[in-house]
Amino acid sequence: MKRLCVHTITTKPLSIEQCIEQFAQRQIRGITVWRQAIEGKDLSHVRRQISESGLEIVSLCRGGFFPAVSTDARQKAIEDNLRAIDQAAAIGAPLIVLVCGAVPGMRLSEARKQIADGIAAVLPAAEQAGVKLAIEPLHPLYADDRSAVNTMAQANQICDLLGSPASLGIAVDVYHVWWDDQLQQQIELTGRTNRLFAFHICDWLTPTTDLLNDRGLMGDGCIDIRQISDWVDATGFNGYREVEIFSNRWWSQDQHDFLDRIVSSYQDLYR
Amino acid sequence: MKRLCVHTITTKPLSIEQCIEQFAQRQIRGITVWRQAIEGKDLSHVRRQISESGLEIVSLCRGGFFPAVSTDARQKAIEDNLRAIDQAAAIGAPLIVLVCGAVPGMRLSEARKQIADGIAAVLPAAEQAGVKLAIEPLHPLYADDRSAVNTMAQANQICDLLGSPASLGIAVDVYHVWWDDQLQQQIELTGRTNRLFAFHICDWLTPTTDLLNDRGLMGDGCIDIRQISDWVDATGFNGYREVEIFSNRWWSQDQHDFLDRIVSSYQDLYR
Repeated sequence: MKRLCVHTITTKPLSIEQCIEQFAQRQIRGITVWRQAIEGKDLSHVRRQISESGLEIVSLCRGGFFPAVSTDARQKAIEDNLRAIDQAAAIGAPLIVLVCGAVPGMRLSEARKQIADGIAAVLPAAEQAGVKLAIEPLHPLYADDRSAVNTMAQANQICDLLGSPASLGIAVDVYHVWWDDQLQQQIELTGRTNRLFAFHICDWLTPTTDLLNDRGLMGDGCIDIRQISDWVDATGFNGYREVEIFSNRWWSQDQHDFLDRIVSSYQDLYR
Repeated sequence: MKRLCVHTITTKPLSIEQCIEQFAQRQIRGITVWRQAIEGKDLSHVRRQISESGLEIVSLCRGGFFPAVSTDARQKAIEDNLRAIDQAAAIGAPLIVLVCGAVPGMRLSEARKQIADGIAAVLPAAEQAGVKLAIEPLHPLYADDRSAVNTMAQANQICDLLGSPASLGIAVDVYHVWWDDQLQQQIELTGRTNRLFAFHICDWLTPTTDLLNDRGLMGDGCIDIRQISDWVDATGFNGYREVEIFSNRWWSQDQHDFLDRIVSSYQDLYR
């Protein structure tokens, strides 16, 4: 249980205050905060609430979305990422997860170049604030408009290209990478380069009925989460296992029951 | 126009007779026949209808779905593929496209092994019948239950593993492979090994609202079809460009208008 973290988006119907209370009640130890959940809130107050509840804040979701057709739009994206860095520092989050972005019709190689440029532009501010950045490769399903970084290999390449800065790493989400035959070796590479910063879990349902919001609870789908988790731990990673589930189905149900199910699924997985 | 082929599934509401008539009327030159469209039909009669209409039969869709948990189920899959080979021979189709299959929860590497074994089991019958087989890599989106072959590299590897038989090749469908940063080099490899057997086109819509049946007409989505088409032609491929669109949206509309749109989109793409 000491490595269990839950994302606020997983229980989207709950307020940040309810998330904090309900997570803590169940001996969940980590919380990853989505920016929507703290919109308009006093961040130092949220930070104190989290700290007083005994929860540890694991990361802030999310920055990124760097590529854009116009220079203006790319600059706006950079400014939004700088705001995320300020928010992370204010709330005490040591890490920001980047959903890197893509533009329909833009060549993916060009989008990846703009992503690398965007990260390079905000990295000094992140370092100054003591906040790390993690590139999250997204499933190729999202290559049209969410991320041109669709494999661990591409995420590792961007880190390499930027000179492997200590503040830049990778978030491994089983949902996005489980299908990749290069996964084990690319996870090993993140180990050798000390850039495995975060590990997200959920499951892939068969059939999946919504491209975005039909993720499953661990054990309800086809992903060999334990195998991937073992590869991750073999790198020396001993951070949180973060439950990140977008699900219209679960969001429509009682969130307290859902949290109980999350805890029991997690315990089944790591028993 | 001389390289335009349309799949019968693209105009699913039409009978095989209507497909033949409507395709031929529009100077479409090739037809790929889905097995559902000829269920219960006299195949020699269909073959004659196609031939008399001036259409060329490009391939039969589809075989595959080899992996299964039980030996019995794997044997059934092999028998179904042998039936497909008989059908292809009867209808005069020189090629069968393989959607290779996957089983939720089965390790993808194991599924790929079963796929290679299944292909090896039916290949002699295909050779005897003068029918070729084409592995179609499917988008990783379908790795749970439709295909464990999700990249061109994996398709090439299976061909290599089986000793590069002349009757075994690859069907490149832009929908499945457009996101892959190894695409150009893997297409080049299929050229050097003479195994690029088929080329399917359609487009990826943003947003995509159905995981299976929301493909777009060429030009309505984000795929640089012309770029991929140029890579394909650079290998020496001069076969058909086959329009394969699964779309609840298009299927609910007038199929004659849809066919007119297919022809004009194709002409725009290759003008």
